[in-house]
Amino acid sequence: MDLEQINSPADLKKMPVEELPKLAAQIRRFLVESLSKTGGHLASNLGVVELTIALHYLFDSPKDKILWDVGHQAYVHKILTGRRHLFPTLRQYQGLCGFPKMSESVHDCWETGHSSTSLSGAMGMVAARDLKGEDFKVIPVIGDGALTGGMALEALNHIGESKSDMIVVLNDNEMSISPNVGALHNHLARLRINKSYNKMKDEVQHLLKKIPTVGVPFAKTLERIKDSLKYLVVSGVFFETLGFTYLGPVDGHQFPELMEILRLAGKTKGPVLVHVITRKGNGYKPAEDDSVVYHGVGTYKIESGVFKKKGGPPSYPDVFGKTMVRLAEQDDRIVAITPAMLTGSKLDRFNEKFPDRCFDVGIAEQHAVTFAAGMATQGYKPVLTIYSTFLQRGYDQLVHDVCKQNLNVVFAVDRAGFVGEDGETHQGIYDISFMRNQPNIAIMMPKDENELQHMLYTAVQYEDGPIAIRYSKSAGVGVPMDENLKLLPIGKSETVRNGRDAAIIAFGNMVQPALEAAESLQLNGFDVRVVNARFAKPLDTEMLDQLAAERIPVVTVEEAVVAGGFGSAVLEYYQEKEVYDLPVKIMGVPDVYVEHATIAEQRRETGLTAENIADAVNRLILQRNPENMRA
Amino acid sequence: MDLEQINSPADLKKMPVEELPKLAAQIRRFLVESLSKTGGHLASNLGVVELTIALHYLFDSPKDKILWDVGHQAYVHKILTGRRHLFPTLRQYQGLCGFPKMSESVHDCWETGHSSTSLSGAMGMVAARDLKGEDFKVIPVIGDGALTGGMALEALNHIGESKSDMIVVLNDNEMSISPNVGALHNHLARLRINKSYNKMKDEVQHLLKKIPTVGVPFAKTLERIKDSLKYLVVSGVFFETLGFTYLGPVDGHQFPELMEILRLAGKTKGPVLVHVITRKGNGYKPAEDDSVVYHGVGTYKIESGVFKKKGGPPSYPDVFGKTMVRLAEQDDRIVAITPAMLTGSKLDRFNEKFPDRCFDVGIAEQHAVTFAAGMATQGYKPVLTIYSTFLQRGYDQLVHDVCKQNLNVVFAVDRAGFVGEDGETHQGIYDISFMRNQPNIAIMMPKDENELQHMLYTAVQYEDGPIAIRYSKSAGVGVPMDENLKLLPIGKSETVRNGRDAAIIAFGNMVQPALEAAESLQLNGFDVRVVNARFAKPLDTEMLDQLAAERIPVVTVEEAVVAGGFGSAVLEYYQEKEVYDLPVKIMGVPDVYVEHATIAEQRRETGLTAENIADAVNRLILQRNPENMRA
Repeated sequence: MDLEQINSPADLKKMPVEELPKLAAQIRRFLVESLSKTGGHLASNLGVVELTIALHYLFDSPKDKILWDVGHQAYVHKILTGRRHLFPTLRQYQGLCGFPKMSESVHDCWETGHSSTSLSGAMGMVAARDLKGEDFKVIPVIGDGALTGGMALEALNHIGESKSDMIVVLNDNEMSISPNVGALHNHLARLRINKSYNKMKDEVQHLLKKIPTVGVPFAKTLERIKDSLKYLVVSGVFFETLGFTYLGPVDGHQFPELMEILRLAGKTKGPVLVHVITRKGNGYKPAEDDSVVYHGVGTYKIESGVFKKKGGPPSYPDVFGKTMVRLAEQDDRIVAITPAMLTGSKLDRFNEKFPDRCFDVGIAEQHAVTFAAGMATQGYKPVLTIYSTFLQRGYDQLVHDVCKQNLNVVFAVDRAGFVGEDGETHQGIYDISFMRNQPNIAIMMPKDENELQHMLYTAVQYEDGPIAIRYSKSAGVGVPMDENLKLLPIGKSETVRNGRDAAIIAFGNMVQPALEAAESLQLNGFDVRVVNARFAKPLDTEMLDQLAAERIPVVTVEEAVVAGGFGSAVLEYYQEKEVYDLPVKIMGVPDVYVEHATIAEQRRETGLTAENIADAVNRLILQRNPENMRA
Repeated sequence: MDLEQINSPADLKKMPVEELPKLAAQIRRFLVESLSKTGGHLASNLGVVELTIALHYLFDSPKDKILWDVGHQAYVHKILTGRRHLFPTLRQYQGLCGFPKMSESVHDCWETGHSSTSLSGAMGMVAARDLKGEDFKVIPVIGDGALTGGMALEALNHIGESKSDMIVVLNDNEMSISPNVGALHNHLARLRINKSYNKMKDEVQHLLKKIPTVGVPFAKTLERIKDSLKYLVVSGVFFETLGFTYLGPVDGHQFPELMEILRLAGKTKGPVLVHVITRKGNGYKPAEDDSVVYHGVGTYKIESGVFKKKGGPPSYPDVFGKTMVRLAEQDDRIVAITPAMLTGSKLDRFNEKFPDRCFDVGIAEQHAVTFAAGMATQGYKPVLTIYSTFLQRGYDQLVHDVCKQNLNVVFAVDRAGFVGEDGETHQGIYDISFMRNQPNIAIMMPKDENELQHMLYTAVQYEDGPIAIRYSKSAGVGVPMDENLKLLPIGKSETVRNGRDAAIIAFGNMVQPALEAAESLQLNGFDVRVVNARFAKPLDTEMLDQLAAERIPVVTVEEAVVAGGFGSAVLEYYQEKEVYDLPVKIMGVPDVYVEHATIAEQRRETGLTAENIADAVNRLILQRNPENMRA
């Protein structure tokens, strides 16, 4: 049988077990070829080829529930559940989603995108199953990184206490960073798995009976040695403490061992944790030639996303990372904090130059925010670099620990606005509305990459409390970068184009399309003012008062949800000032989830292009002065 | 020396150590007497009298930083740091705050209110100290309940890995629920503390050397027994695994032992966890007569808050709890989930009647939300009962796991609006704005306790995704309760008073003051319509269109922040419909933190009384028709 014949887990189960390694090789080849054309999460998927095959071979999806934590490693699962043919559309507009998605398949029982949610979801399914008296397996697959997320630890605590049947698969690829350690680890795993867990346990129990425990000093202590046996048989102390049976570690690329331990897990009562060691990127190679593998990964990466970006203007995160180094050289109060996104947030150089001042706290957004607050109490200027979508994880900490204590924490809110191919789980479009309901905080967004460096400079100088800079993941506008950094006045906008027929107040990366819209409206004979808002909070009330005084209708535009966003803040301000008859039109993301596509497509989909802006302004002007219709 | 002479930690240090128990007794008496008049968190403070004295005696605040997790147990700390005289004003308008507050004292280095934040804050202070090369102790005091919160676990992970000097005091009062177990525990603690930690360790090491490890079967295993010694000497396996030195447990009410172990902790390098066993409510007694204690607690409680409430209408949480039982009797899909607030959320009876369907997951809000999502995937109707302010902890889970997957989770958002004496850290005034930016969710608030039961009935019947009911902690209006439960139409408001001069659209508990305002305006000759909004999402667009068509000026009012709230949703709707000239005035909480006081005082402070509403409507009518001025 070949990969082409596998269109469901049922097909897979027909395959003789000896052929599974061949299938794994075919899947690797398919992934490498397919992703070379579309891009995507290659390494993590290559790491779970055997694991995914083994799970679908041994268990019975969709009756049994497999939950992919984070979910970007679910490609093999998608291949085995009838979606192989959709891979040419991966992460493209209306194509295959890069994460599990219920609407794609009955085999996707749980949607993910953010990390550390699978254990809680699994515990919910288990509780439901046990209440109904049903009988199926629940199998969350979670990485070692995701396990440090607070909610995963909360869930472990509940699962362990509940004593419910659940198979947690810990996909541990930490060792891949240092191949030697990883190899040793795998060696140990093989040693241990030679005798089964239970057999080994028996033998140690037997031994311990021989140790005298009566009449010797510390008899009690020896009794406790017996009690603590479980810590000796395996190294899963942490999990055992929490109430799990710990199985492993096992080499996640060797079928016999992997199948054996998963079978054993399936028979074990209560919560089991199976510790599987995998290597990210494993098998990105023609099977016959190992040494090509590692080069191949490099070449491959260049051909995909990374290479294509070359030559354009630097991205906002690039400029952020560079400016951080520059500022930190001059101000040793500046420290950087990241929850596991050192490279994504472009802090690598900062980390090289200032290792003592760079804190990667792992996937732990809540801690990251409050840790920053703690440092701020001691006079430091922590710059917390965090993706907008992940700041949702630290929301209470932003509210309760930073804003309420009014501490000088800088939030560098990366991946704000649309994020493109990662899609709906990662859109950075809620941060304005969830941040601006807090007193004390200031919120900025730069119109271009040059303004970003000035904003970061302004933020680290700011002494009046928390301040956030949100910025897009995308390439900058391509403007020249100023040599000298400038302090921007807090709460002040910048008029970038004059005009009296209407005003577009654009926030951040919408200034550029707003300018394009104004240019096109000029062709219709309309003089449209464009204001670079700079701040969503505090608002530039002087500018807003001026527009009201001049009776200039307003269009606001932001790459964020309308509900409670920047435009709403403008509406709220005008009602507060009892300006009840100035037309204000808000443009932003409507009340829908915006799926994977390019950022440009996402703007088109949600009506946030220069053309859309021009249309809205045009309509507003005509409504106000119908006689213009003839102009 | 007496309590009256202790106005600072410096005063305390002058006291001979033998007199500390006397001081503890005086503080207990002071607390019991003072709180009998003001109310407050009695039990938790009585549990930490000796601990607080010992910390201030041995360490050097404010140089050394003591962080009180949750913070409601900081009363003794406040007494010892010069705020004894302010206790008559505790938790009252402009009086002493019930939580640590930087503006009150230099000894309050970290503000709290929500649990589990102290470790992250402490890690920030430690990182700052070590970067600056300074030398002071950082001492977070955290309860066993707070330790299960995900962010505390994230922080333990970071602290353990950092190997930085920090003294974590684990205030473990879990045993207090079951006195026998607690007594045993204390007994064990005393046994252990008789020899110091290090001495005991030495002895066990010595013993182990006598066990032969060469030439016997399983020599390797015995080697591992030695390695695992730390698990035998103490029971702090969990903490040791994470990299802490574990000291204890120690009886937190015995000065010599407590002081000894804290001194030892002060000398230990790296992170230390001191496990202190305390009893909540301990010492609520004249020192001479133990048996009075437990009765005293009962009587005392009746004299404070609980007693005063008797006789009035049932509170919203009371009605919620009752209705839950009633609904669950008829629908076995209904389950209840609470993050450690079983009693506060009035789920006790539900838990008694349906123990299998009631899940108290501990202080673990993130897990609670996603656990609910997991149950919903299997056809259950989880009702997640959660305080508004704590839902902030589960925000990303609400976004990513519930709303995005569009699961039928009912959020029973308790303590919504003002919370009175708990003050600014606990105000439930942000939930509308942070929830309504999500697609799929419906958001309700009842005008009275009778409507609450109908809303809960409606919510558990609702099959189209997540639905939230926010309700106040306060007493209901006193209306009669309908016998039969009704389905309320989704997204439909209710006009509760007719009128054409203006309309007040009130959300939830603001309907009552809105009606009062309308009545008073009637005296001025104005006919004011009052609409019970019922839903903040979806909005009743038909009602809003109608008001626009009739050109009736609108005042919206909600007990929540203006920024992004219900009123903003109304403004957004009108601009979407291009209704640019209908006066809409928004009333809600302005952009400030609202401190402790009664709810009535908090409404006055923020301009949300019936009188304020009448004034706003009056002003709007007069602005619109200045000729009315003469009416």
